[in-house]
Amino acid sequence: MLDKTVYLDNAASTRLDERVLEAMKPYYFDTYAVATSEFGYSMGIDAKEGLENARAGIASSLGASPEEIVFTSGETESSNMAIKGVVSALMKKKGNHIIVSKIEDFPVLNTARALEKQGCRADYISVSPEGILNLEELENAITGNTALVSIQHANQEIGTLQDIKAIAEICKEKDVLLHTDATHSFTRVPLDVSKIPVDLVTMSAHTIHGPRGVGALYIREGTPINKWMDGGFQESNRRAGLENIPGAVGFAKAVELVTPEENRFLASLRDHTIRRAEEEVPHVTLNGSRTQRVPQNANITFHYVEGESMTLHLDMRGFAVSTGSACFSRSLEASHVIMGIGGDHERAHGSLRFSFGRYNSMEDVDGIIDAVKEIVSQLRAISPLYDKNK
Amino acid sequence: MLDKTVYLDNAASTRLDERVLEAMKPYYFDTYAVATSEFGYSMGIDAKEGLENARAGIASSLGASPEEIVFTSGETESSNMAIKGVVSALMKKKGNHIIVSKIEDFPVLNTARALEKQGCRADYISVSPEGILNLEELENAITGNTALVSIQHANQEIGTLQDIKAIAEICKEKDVLLHTDATHSFTRVPLDVSKIPVDLVTMSAHTIHGPRGVGALYIREGTPINKWMDGGFQESNRRAGLENIPGAVGFAKAVELVTPEENRFLASLRDHTIRRAEEEVPHVTLNGSRTQRVPQNANITFHYVEGESMTLHLDMRGFAVSTGSACFSRSLEASHVIMGIGGDHERAHGSLRFSFGRYNSMEDVDGIIDAVKEIVSQLRAISPLYDKNK
Repeated sequence: MLDKTVYLDNAASTRLDERVLEAMKPYYFDTYAVATSEFGYSMGIDAKEGLENARAGIASSLGASPEEIVFTSGETESSNMAIKGVVSALMKKKGNHIIVSKIEDFPVLNTARALEKQGCRADYISVSPEGILNLEELENAITGNTALVSIQHANQEIGTLQDIKAIAEICKEKDVLLHTDATHSFTRVPLDVSKIPVDLVTMSAHTIHGPRGVGALYIREGTPINKWMDGGFQESNRRAGLENIPGAVGFAKAVELVTPEENRFLASLRDHTIRRAEEEVPHVTLNGSRTQRVPQNANITFHYVEGESMTLHLDMRGFAVSTGSACFSRSLEASHVIMGIGGDHERAHGSLRFSFGRYNSMEDVDGIIDAVKEIVSQLRAISPLYDKNK
Repeated sequence: MLDKTVYLDNAASTRLDERVLEAMKPYYFDTYAVATSEFGYSMGIDAKEGLENARAGIASSLGASPEEIVFTSGETESSNMAIKGVVSALMKKKGNHIIVSKIEDFPVLNTARALEKQGCRADYISVSPEGILNLEELENAITGNTALVSIQHANQEIGTLQDIKAIAEICKEKDVLLHTDATHSFTRVPLDVSKIPVDLVTMSAHTIHGPRGVGALYIREGTPINKWMDGGFQESNRRAGLENIPGAVGFAKAVELVTPEENRFLASLRDHTIRRAEEEVPHVTLNGSRTQRVPQNANITFHYVEGESMTLHLDMRGFAVSTGSACFSRSLEASHVIMGIGGDHERAHGSLRFSFGRYNSMEDVDGIIDAVKEIVSQLRAISPLYDKNK
């Protein structure tokens, strides 16, 4: 059954690209030294070179200098390190107030909540029905005690892109540091830190066919940040832990493999999905912005049906999608993102998130929309809720 | 040059085993879903099954239950999580005092130092000239405010094994929790948590030919521990972050591939290295214990020569070893381990650490000892220090 399943969930982008593994292999089997042993012997120098080339590749895709990139174990660690590291560095000098949006992904949202429990103050800025941050509310929330603003570049569920330039300018004007979680936009939508004054950027390899357990944090030179994970002196004494050199090399290769053509292709899959759903299925709502949106995401609520039922029926037909937040699908709690954009429980639970990746085709998209049409129609036919409202 | 180098540094165990990569591949290319999407569709269930089988494999090698194992990004994260998580949970209820040994690896040692800066109290217990913990000193250091004792199972440089059973019994008697960093002993020396009352155990895949960036933490059921990395609800809400399923599966495979026969073989390489060095090179000191020692480590000081010079000369002859701590070899600071066992700077800087792995042979060992003999003799011939003392 597995080999005929079409993945249009986050798995669409977590499948490793074979070329990424090929790039990693030499660092598993030939040049497998620990980079910090560089003084000792040749292989250490070769391994270090692989790591530094990977660092330069990631940096260049972001308009950063290589020394501003720190490799981590992924999105969650990068965001924890950014927020806890900066707050810890500025707590006494400036204050322990942080500002995030209401629709952040869990690494940022729950780090803010954890810091609140430790006595920090956090503000959660609201967003428009399309998921766009309320800039005026942000501006008013910043005080002299604000250590950090953390606003995502793109949303993990509804794909809405924030105007990160406008946000960065507000932060710069108010002299406060800005972190952005770019996990769901990195390489898919340009972000140039040489032009946009963002101070910290979270990135992850798993959203672009790179290896799991590998991410990076951009830290603008001069940013005050305490070490969060203690131990060895790796990553210029900013992040302890034996370097995952094959992982870093794989991440850089994954970045290199993303092209503007591919991003346009993903956008065409997205637009086709939205168009067909809106034209062919009654009672649907597009979640997120129609224009300010990452190319690889469509999120649609099919009213009067349960997302969980739809995903199960789709699974039986060989299609994998998710409902609500992928990180949260074990729970039946409504997505905080859909609630954050003004949706209710019904809208949250009836939502399907489509993610598009390198291995998807237009045929996949047509297949799933055909299936969704049938399933929605069948489920609505037996839904007392739908009978009352249709 | 690379293909003729013989690795007897920590790289001897960081080379990935091809069978490990083969075990990982299905989770990169076929079953690449996010485990927490399990309610959504079949592939999520298969991915979850792979993760849980890996967890059961690691657990079984330690005498633990699967639910007591949390996957992490490696040794450093496991030890940070264990120590900071327990101290945070017990700080108000019990106290913020921790106890570690003077010769811990950096993840434990520098976490203790970082906690001290945050107002915690730390004691650093001394060790014998062989590196064996002073049990009486430990017993006397424990107070009613002690939140955690963290004593390594085996040392990272000199390979000394602690009597973890005696240490655990002291802690149990005094009703204090015990963490042990078993990075350098896991699978090489038995550790059965069903028999030894240790509460937390750090493990890593990179020391047994597993993938980089993958580790685990054993947490005995009921152990008070706060979440350290915030975000999603993975690992039964104990460790946030997208599961690195290929990594976990690779780690479990690496564990499975270690056999008692292999450990006996590594011990024979170790013993042969020590025997030949002691018999054939004058003025050498074995660092660490002759009997309480992991099979894959030999650490020898060649007096009147610099370890850095030896490693460079050995490198030119195609042999890779390290001097001092691998994590620290960028610095010329003396190894805190050699200093901790009563050595001086001369002894620390003249030390070579030999690590043995699956891909080493008795021929490798004879080759490096032949080379060391020549190099030491040449370096001593031009050493004014040696002339004065020989």
